[in-house]
Amino acid sequence: MVDVLCSGNALVDVLATVTEEQLAALGIVKNSYELVDADVADRLYAAMPPAVEISGGAAANTAVGVVSLGGTAGYIGKVRDDQLGAVFRHDLRSAGVGFDTAAASSGPATGRALTLITPDAHRTFRTYLGAANELTPDEVDEATVADAEVTYLEGYLWDPPSAKDAFRKAMKAAHDASRRVSLTLSDPFCVHNWGHEFRELLTNGDIDILFANEDELLTLFPGTEFAAAVEQVRGLCPIAAVTRSEHGSIVVAGDETHEVAAARVDEVVDTTGAGDLYAAGFLFGLTHGEPLARCGELGSLCAAEVISHVGARPQRRLAELVASS
Amino acid sequence: MVDVLCSGNALVDVLATVTEEQLAALGIVKNSYELVDADVADRLYAAMPPAVEISGGAAANTAVGVVSLGGTAGYIGKVRDDQLGAVFRHDLRSAGVGFDTAAASSGPATGRALTLITPDAHRTFRTYLGAANELTPDEVDEATVADAEVTYLEGYLWDPPSAKDAFRKAMKAAHDASRRVSLTLSDPFCVHNWGHEFRELLTNGDIDILFANEDELLTLFPGTEFAAAVEQVRGLCPIAAVTRSEHGSIVVAGDETHEVAAARVDEVVDTTGAGDLYAAGFLFGLTHGEPLARCGELGSLCAAEVISHVGARPQRRLAELVASS
Repeated sequence: MVDVLCSGNALVDVLATVTEEQLAALGIVKNSYELVDADVADRLYAAMPPAVEISGGAAANTAVGVVSLGGTAGYIGKVRDDQLGAVFRHDLRSAGVGFDTAAASSGPATGRALTLITPDAHRTFRTYLGAANELTPDEVDEATVADAEVTYLEGYLWDPPSAKDAFRKAMKAAHDASRRVSLTLSDPFCVHNWGHEFRELLTNGDIDILFANEDELLTLFPGTEFAAAVEQVRGLCPIAAVTRSEHGSIVVAGDETHEVAAARVDEVVDTTGAGDLYAAGFLFGLTHGEPLARCGELGSLCAAEVISHVGARPQRRLAELVASS
Repeated sequence: MVDVLCSGNALVDVLATVTEEQLAALGIVKNSYELVDADVADRLYAAMPPAVEISGGAAANTAVGVVSLGGTAGYIGKVRDDQLGAVFRHDLRSAGVGFDTAAASSGPATGRALTLITPDAHRTFRTYLGAANELTPDEVDEATVADAEVTYLEGYLWDPPSAKDAFRKAMKAAHDASRRVSLTLSDPFCVHNWGHEFRELLTNGDIDILFANEDELLTLFPGTEFAAAVEQVRGLCPIAAVTRSEHGSIVVAGDETHEVAAARVDEVVDTTGAGDLYAAGFLFGLTHGEPLARCGELGSLCAAEVISHVGARPQRRLAELVASS
């Protein structure tokens, strides 16, 4: 029994700080997100400044956040039996997250997110999915899903057919056990590619709790103003939390609407993981009986911690941060 | 032609922050340094908190520091053709350090330094040398050594016979070309094991520039007071720089004696790399015609930068730091 079972792309972040000029010289548009193959990843890596390796993966970051808040979390995702796969597994398990998905013994290497951080704390991703992309329904154990209060799925992984099947299996297992399913739209890029399927999932009642940022929401409902998009999602999903960077978030659920302020941050260093940790705070609150406005506040607090340093996983124990806030 | 050619254990640092209680629970004495085999390293890693991977290796850190100051540097060291080996190579090359030693295609994995950082910024090491330990004289190209103004050797690697042979070959090639050889004693543990051979190297005139901290120097001359140990090393080596943490350093060379203050640090976060970056500053100064007192000051400045953050490589461009100091 865990509070939140998370599933997504198992990635090690390769983080480098670059100037705007270096980014331009690499021929990369700031704030963009792109999937790349192994060759492109190797070429870009060779041209990148010295980097730091920190386990990442959006849903994995969320799982770590839930545990850091004092909750319980599990993770389903695919690495290879290589050094970076061992690093990813170590960092999740040692953070207290259950992670038993077997590593692939052949095929592509453990996935990497090449992350370029500009001085304004924005990040630009080039992601080599590698083994992460090979998740299949076999890796989804229905009893484990049935045991989780919320199953949280990462839109980033809604791409290869086998991973979609894995997610569909998880959604069904959760609902068969009267549990809730949460989806994050992850990135406008994902919504651009798969918005029609995300809308279909919402229409079918497959999603109980939706996370999106403003850009993702507007990509999901093209040609809509923000307020109208919020009303659309209100009609399609029992709970939706829409994050708006420094403007906080808006949480809608049936007749309820909560505007939540962003938590104060002394210096924004690296926004990687902001959405992941917002989801961690929100879902921790939700699985601990907090009212929705408080869930949003917990999300804001956790997001503020993670953007105050390099890396997408908390460096302070979030339970203490919440207690002292 | 480079200013400084560095050689030592090619390691990726695996850095985790631990409390004093966690360190005690791991059964590890604070501030200790130990070599461990692959099994012990794996067991310790499994018990360690989440970590961050950052390329390290003492002499490699020094090479990066020299380049960051605006100098030129090369590196000789052994990794395997695995993921961490690729990380190590990338981080050195992208920092501008020449590194062409071929990766081993069989044998042990790339070395790792499991580094436990306590809240007082002290660090405790358990190092799995792996491939780093396999350096042989074949990896030392005499023409490359002859082309370097200073060849800087790391005492940590003075252990396996083949690596000692590699270092002896480098010393000879340097002196045959009328270049200078520098040695760092690296750690009291190394001096405890090999002090008699280090003294022999000094007596034979194999070392022109010696780096040591206070503990290492006192281990090199057992039963001696600090002042007397400084006089001993003055008689054995043309230039010796002895670092004393917050008390700065003392540089002796023939009749010259320079007491150098430590540079101011707002908050000491992680002392890993302090000695490596002191050597970088010192050797950059020396190869750019600075007087010895200024070499020591440059060492202090560089050490202060690296202890103000986690990780043993500079995060600021040291040339700018020096210009603004």
